[in-house]
Amino acid sequence: SDRHRIALLPGDGIGPEVMAMAETVLNTLIHGHDLPLDYEVLPWPATDWHRRHGAMMPEDALERLRGYDALLLGALGDPGPLDDPRRYHLPDGISLAPLLTLRKGLNLWACERPARFYPGTVQYLADPRARDLDMLVIRENSEGEYAGQGGRLRAGTRDEIANQLEVFTHAATERLIRHAFEQARARAADRARDGRDRVFNEPGGEDKAAQVCLITKRNAQAFWGELYTEVFRDVAADYPDIATHHELVDAAAMKFVQAPWRFDVVVASNLHGDILTDLAAVLSGGLGVAPSANLNPSDPTQPALFEPTHGSAPDIAGQGVADPRATLFSLALLLQWLGEKNTIFNGAARHLHETLKADLAGEHPASGTEAIGARIQGALGGSR
Amino acid sequence: SDRHRIALLPGDGIGPEVMAMAETVLNTLIHGHDLPLDYEVLPWPATDWHRRHGAMMPEDALERLRGYDALLLGALGDPGPLDDPRRYHLPDGISLAPLLTLRKGLNLWACERPARFYPGTVQYLADPRARDLDMLVIRENSEGEYAGQGGRLRAGTRDEIANQLEVFTHAATERLIRHAFEQARARAADRARDGRDRVFNEPGGEDKAAQVCLITKRNAQAFWGELYTEVFRDVAADYPDIATHHELVDAAAMKFVQAPWRFDVVVASNLHGDILTDLAAVLSGGLGVAPSANLNPSDPTQPALFEPTHGSAPDIAGQGVADPRATLFSLALLLQWLGEKNTIFNGAARHLHETLKADLAGEHPASGTEAIGARIQGALGGSR
Ligand SMILES: CC(C)[C@H](C(=O)O)[C@@H](O)C(=O)O
Ligand SMILES: CC(C)[C@H](C(=O)O)[C@@H](O)C(=O)O
Repeated sequence: SDRHRIALLPGDGIGPEVMAMAETVLNTLIHGHDLPLDYEVLPWPATDWHRRHGAMMPEDALERLRGYDALLLGALGDPGPLDDPRRYHLPDGISLAPLLTLRKGLNLWACERPARFYPGTVQYLADPRARDLDMLVIRENSEGEYAGQGGRLRAGTRDEIANQLEVFTHAATERLIRHAFEQARARAADRARDGRDRVFNEPGGEDKAAQVCLITKRNAQAFWGELYTEVFRDVAADYPDIATHHELVDAAAMKFVQAPWRFDVVVASNLHGDILTDLAAVLSGGLGVAPSANLNPSDPTQPALFEPTHGSAPDIAGQGVADPRATLFSLALLLQWLGEKNTIFNGAARHLHETLKADLAGEHPASGTEAIGARIQGALGGSR
Repeated sequence: SDRHRIALLPGDGIGPEVMAMAETVLNTLIHGHDLPLDYEVLPWPATDWHRRHGAMMPEDALERLRGYDALLLGALGDPGPLDDPRRYHLPDGISLAPLLTLRKGLNLWACERPARFYPGTVQYLADPRARDLDMLVIRENSEGEYAGQGGRLRAGTRDEIANQLEVFTHAATERLIRHAFEQARARAADRARDGRDRVFNEPGGEDKAAQVCLITKRNAQAFWGELYTEVFRDVAADYPDIATHHELVDAAAMKFVQAPWRFDVVVASNLHGDILTDLAAVLSGGLGVAPSANLNPSDPTQPALFEPTHGSAPDIAGQGVADPRATLFSLALLLQWLGEKNTIFNGAARHLHETLKADLAGEHPASGTEAIGARIQGALGGSR
């Protein structure tokens, strides 16, 4: 059939609240735009599910998720009762594990986190040029610092040695970097179409319409730093139209604050990408508006996973104060991604995105999950 | 004898320029405050030395450096001719290696990077409370992500696997975290003395006068994340007067931008500390004012190494535009550290620090290495 199926995974903490809002909005879009889209709400992965079944998700979870076209996740992480509060003051541990299981198990090797500044959100940087922020951070999602290999020798004793092995392969590095160049080219084409061209200078070279900036810490972590650098150089040779740049991760963090408007596409390892995307998110106005996409660009039959960059925020869960907009921005990314298979989704994606932008730019007396959701519902032409 | 000996290591790039200024200032302080201090300027480590001798420093460099009480380094790193420009677009590679050799070889296991906002410097954050920034980041300097173990299997082929082993020991973790709590206590005492008390809330606990915030990425790098968390909990039990906190490194980067004034002492691994200190440096007004100290707090007979947080900036080297103040702030830290052995240095340290602060706060028509240096010289009562 040419109908598409997606799954909504509310998860933990504020996840169910923001997802309820996303579901309402999704229904409005399905009806308003006549989308060939069916969705299901799944009770897992979630800490609640663990309470009842002894695991965060069913054994055949990955298999079942593979049957959908795309997944929208609310949030994961519950500080109790699964995670030992003496060791974990934050919602990490068992309840967060499914996130990495999904990314790795569904082979979603690229994480894309676009960061633009939206008028109406908090502007943390003093420089007005920070409003021109428009970057896409592409993060490795399948190996590297998150390979999960290592262990604790003589754990808990004064003689303990804890090892964590970072594993980087040529194959994963090349597909990642190639994808970054492809995205840079696509962004330049979009900008050219809209008359929003940008110019990137290369030392001693010609001006280019897009740039890819590689992030490493090769002066202290040489082994994979050299691999990344060499693969980057080789792939770049296939993209003479794209400017190239390199930043050490520490310098990049600094430059994100000093001049974030200078970046276009940024490609980084799992951990570096994790840190830099949180930084980019805050510069784009905060976690309340930061979406992310976990994709397998080499196999579009794999369901992509979309999620807000924020966590489960257990401290405010159940109070109706969570901002649903990061989840709605993620839903817009999901629809845009479906649009690559079936253009009918493009209109709905744009409609939602524009509505969210306009909502942010407006002055609103009321905030809170319900109020924001109702406003966006109304603007989309739906009812509650 | 009760005279103290220090070595000045100008290094590469802008290092020699800023160090020349530091030497002039040091002479003024020695004479003005009658300091029992002798210094020597060493031509290594440096790329120039490599050109003439085939290595960045003599074979017995560490041994010779151990003969000094303290070291002041300008900067290291030269993009050519040693570092292959095809692989390294930035000044890293061979010419930077001595930095890690010195830190590890002299067993300088703690890197301290204080960050305060100095009026007169660039204020990157829009929130005026960012002027209250006053934190001390203590970074692990001897192991962890910088252990340097690993390799490249099938290097340069499509089947390559690059491994980088992170190595964390209980011993290094405990001394680091204990040092952080000691520093937090000392900071609280200083604040109490000056009537600048701060209050840190613990969820469900009493207010405390100081805080230590632990940084990990334990939800994705569990092995050493657990080690750090457990050691932190154990050490904290010995410091009931200090509030404790934990942030994941990605959240910490975000919160440094959102509310840097909330942090007091931050303790982090080698790589996390590297990234967060660059971020803290920019929030304190930029790399032009950010000093750092590499210390062995468990053995004060080891010479401590002081250096600006900035690099060798080869693009502006030789132009006389480098800001010498980060090196001068580092010199102030060095004098303050000598003051722990011999109080005569305290007056000079304070004098230099206050002079630098006043200089930053003033309106000055001229900038550039010479102009800034001459101004500070004049303010200190010296001549050029
Ligand atoms: C929860 C955690 C493992 C995760 C990550 O580090 O990838 C999160 O911080 C994110 O960025 O999606
Ligand atoms: C040059 C590099 C190895 C070094 C580091 O990462 O420690 C530098 O960035 C620093 O922070 O002193």
